[in-house]
Amino acid sequence: MSKSFFPPVRTLMGPGPSDVSPRVLAALSRPTIGHLDPLFIDLMDDIKRLLQYAFQTANALTLPISAPGSAGMEAVFVNLLEPGDKVIVCQNGVFGGRMRENVERCGADAIMVEDSWGTPIDLAKVEQALEQHPDAVALAFVHSETSTGVRSDAKALCELAKRHNCLSIVDAVTSLAGIELKADDWGIDAIYSGTQKCLSCVPGLSPVSFSERAVKRIKSRTTKVQSWFLDMNLVMDYWGAQTRRSYHHTAPVNALYALHESLLMLEEEGLTASHNRHASHHQALAAGFEAMGLGLPVASAFRLPQLNAVSVPAGIDEAKIRQLLLQDWNLEIGAGLGSLAGKVWRVGLMGHTATRQNVIFCLSAMEQTLQSQGAGIHVARALPAAQQVYNKIAPGAA
Amino acid sequence: MSKSFFPPVRTLMGPGPSDVSPRVLAALSRPTIGHLDPLFIDLMDDIKRLLQYAFQTANALTLPISAPGSAGMEAVFVNLLEPGDKVIVCQNGVFGGRMRENVERCGADAIMVEDSWGTPIDLAKVEQALEQHPDAVALAFVHSETSTGVRSDAKALCELAKRHNCLSIVDAVTSLAGIELKADDWGIDAIYSGTQKCLSCVPGLSPVSFSERAVKRIKSRTTKVQSWFLDMNLVMDYWGAQTRRSYHHTAPVNALYALHESLLMLEEEGLTASHNRHASHHQALAAGFEAMGLGLPVASAFRLPQLNAVSVPAGIDEAKIRQLLLQDWNLEIGAGLGSLAGKVWRVGLMGHTATRQNVIFCLSAMEQTLQSQGAGIHVARALPAAQQVYNKIAPGAA
Repeated sequence: MSKSFFPPVRTLMGPGPSDVSPRVLAALSRPTIGHLDPLFIDLMDDIKRLLQYAFQTANALTLPISAPGSAGMEAVFVNLLEPGDKVIVCQNGVFGGRMRENVERCGADAIMVEDSWGTPIDLAKVEQALEQHPDAVALAFVHSETSTGVRSDAKALCELAKRHNCLSIVDAVTSLAGIELKADDWGIDAIYSGTQKCLSCVPGLSPVSFSERAVKRIKSRTTKVQSWFLDMNLVMDYWGAQTRRSYHHTAPVNALYALHESLLMLEEEGLTASHNRHASHHQALAAGFEAMGLGLPVASAFRLPQLNAVSVPAGIDEAKIRQLLLQDWNLEIGAGLGSLAGKVWRVGLMGHTATRQNVIFCLSAMEQTLQSQGAGIHVARALPAAQQVYNKIAPGAA
Repeated sequence: MSKSFFPPVRTLMGPGPSDVSPRVLAALSRPTIGHLDPLFIDLMDDIKRLLQYAFQTANALTLPISAPGSAGMEAVFVNLLEPGDKVIVCQNGVFGGRMRENVERCGADAIMVEDSWGTPIDLAKVEQALEQHPDAVALAFVHSETSTGVRSDAKALCELAKRHNCLSIVDAVTSLAGIELKADDWGIDAIYSGTQKCLSCVPGLSPVSFSERAVKRIKSRTTKVQSWFLDMNLVMDYWGAQTRRSYHHTAPVNALYALHESLLMLEEEGLTASHNRHASHHQALAAGFEAMGLGLPVASAFRLPQLNAVSVPAGIDEAKIRQLLLQDWNLEIGAGLGSLAGKVWRVGLMGHTATRQNVIFCLSAMEQTLQSQGAGIHVARALPAAQQVYNKIAPGAA
């Protein structure tokens, strides 16, 4: 016979999930009501409005897909692409590669524009690809590469897409609420995100938004969307504006309570304040790591405040350090992925996790753990360096 | 500015979600940990074992899809079918039709075997179809039609499939834990369910299981699975038996805490006791409705205890009754779907909802509400009729 599961209280400073606020966990566990209950329909409308705020868009087709970010990515591609379509896909990390998988499984052609992992997408290469492939229907790229901690210039990429008459498809899984993101101002046509990153909601939902141009394309398809579950023509009837909502699938009611609460907290704080908070704590954390003597492989101009790649010192077993942090400190940080596996850690400062308390805690725990494993780091320098940043850029930040 | 959402406490007696136990809601809101945390990996193993018990299977590929039942259905079809495959699909309600949608979106051919809504699948017609289409690769059917409240003979259908060298694909969304279901004994090759029915967990997950024969087919595909998110070749690496689990997507951690707790409650009660509980309360509820003079359109031999179709009396606005029940009694019952819209209500007794308290409450609320709207029903007869059932078949049931 099994037993009930009581998880430990971890501090989640990996690539997501991030720490979920007690307010969000409380909302999550409120009594379940029906997915067609009039009160739930009202809640859906409010979630939609709050998501429009988070994405900075007036797009009518803005809603959370009832599945994780990977399904949000898939929803965008299967709805916008038809077999034979050509798409320019930028890859500078794991998630550009996943985009390619999605494009190809739609029977479409992915023209890859590749950049080194740890660097942003090169605009010149993208422009060249767009010129070489005037028949491409879309440009797809990752705004914040979760696998490397790199930010690319989403605004400039969307402008390039527009100039070449392509739809822009943007992966904003790690961006949303963490760094500036303006779907309408930048002319984004399709965007998807996740709930377990800078929104600090539980994992399992994927907010998406489609521009009018994208919706027009979805409605004028000549083939059916290959996924019934993700077909926006059908999902629209449940999340749409009409007075009578029609059943499509059973919405994850409690997860949506949680998403609502986390979006509400974002609205209360304000998007700009949220971005500034992520930036401040990132600067303190980065200063601490550098003072310790740890390298930050991403050039400072392109670093994501919410996800910090940190080089593993020579001779150190990176998995052992993560294991000790988890075991002795209840602190989770992330491993490197793909070509960065074994070479970097990924230290997240996402959403509710981005506090001074966590920055200080993480620097202390890493300093002591690295020292215990014989890493040649500078001790007792990280905390003063972090505090100096707080004193300078955000006096009183907590 | 929006406000936090505080749902009312409803009694959920529709077609799902059903009432979620406080134990499950408490598990849901425990602190989030990482989806690759060793403690979470252990929990996944326990969930797998408990799902094997619930499905009565030893299938290694048994896991919850990170999305609702519709995605579970899609996972089964996209993994097992390749373009050009032929599948016999039985339809006697809404969900057989959804199967057809899935088959066709895989580029496969659906040979439909249709029966009237409200009746079970006709074995003779299925056998005929299997004989006429010896090249069919699978037989797909709904065990418990949630749209009509009808149970079909899954065991006999699986035998027919086997005899004609077809894989059997079974929709058990409303069956699991509510009525007898034996995946291995019956030779089921692929099965999917939902969490929000007789498991009384929150909506949003879909338990699935694949036989060795099905796994062999998935591994020997000549084309890629059209969905990256649902590709079992990839999902297996996260949920599989190997010591090192590889990242596929971020699992819905908290929803899985809840599923674990609900499966644990099922194991504690025992499958047979759970089936008997559903059957007893169904008999009391049905006796009450009949004593009131309400018709039950499904023949008694094929009724699902967990989902009761009840005919709407002549001259009564069915939506108005549901609205009054919700508003004045906080009681949710379901509307008819498709060809039964406006003609029946669907009254659920699923999982945690299947109690004597709810049976008595529902009969009382419906009697008073129908009477207030001028329906010609027999008053004061339903409760004694229900109590008589309890006295006879389950003395002391509560």
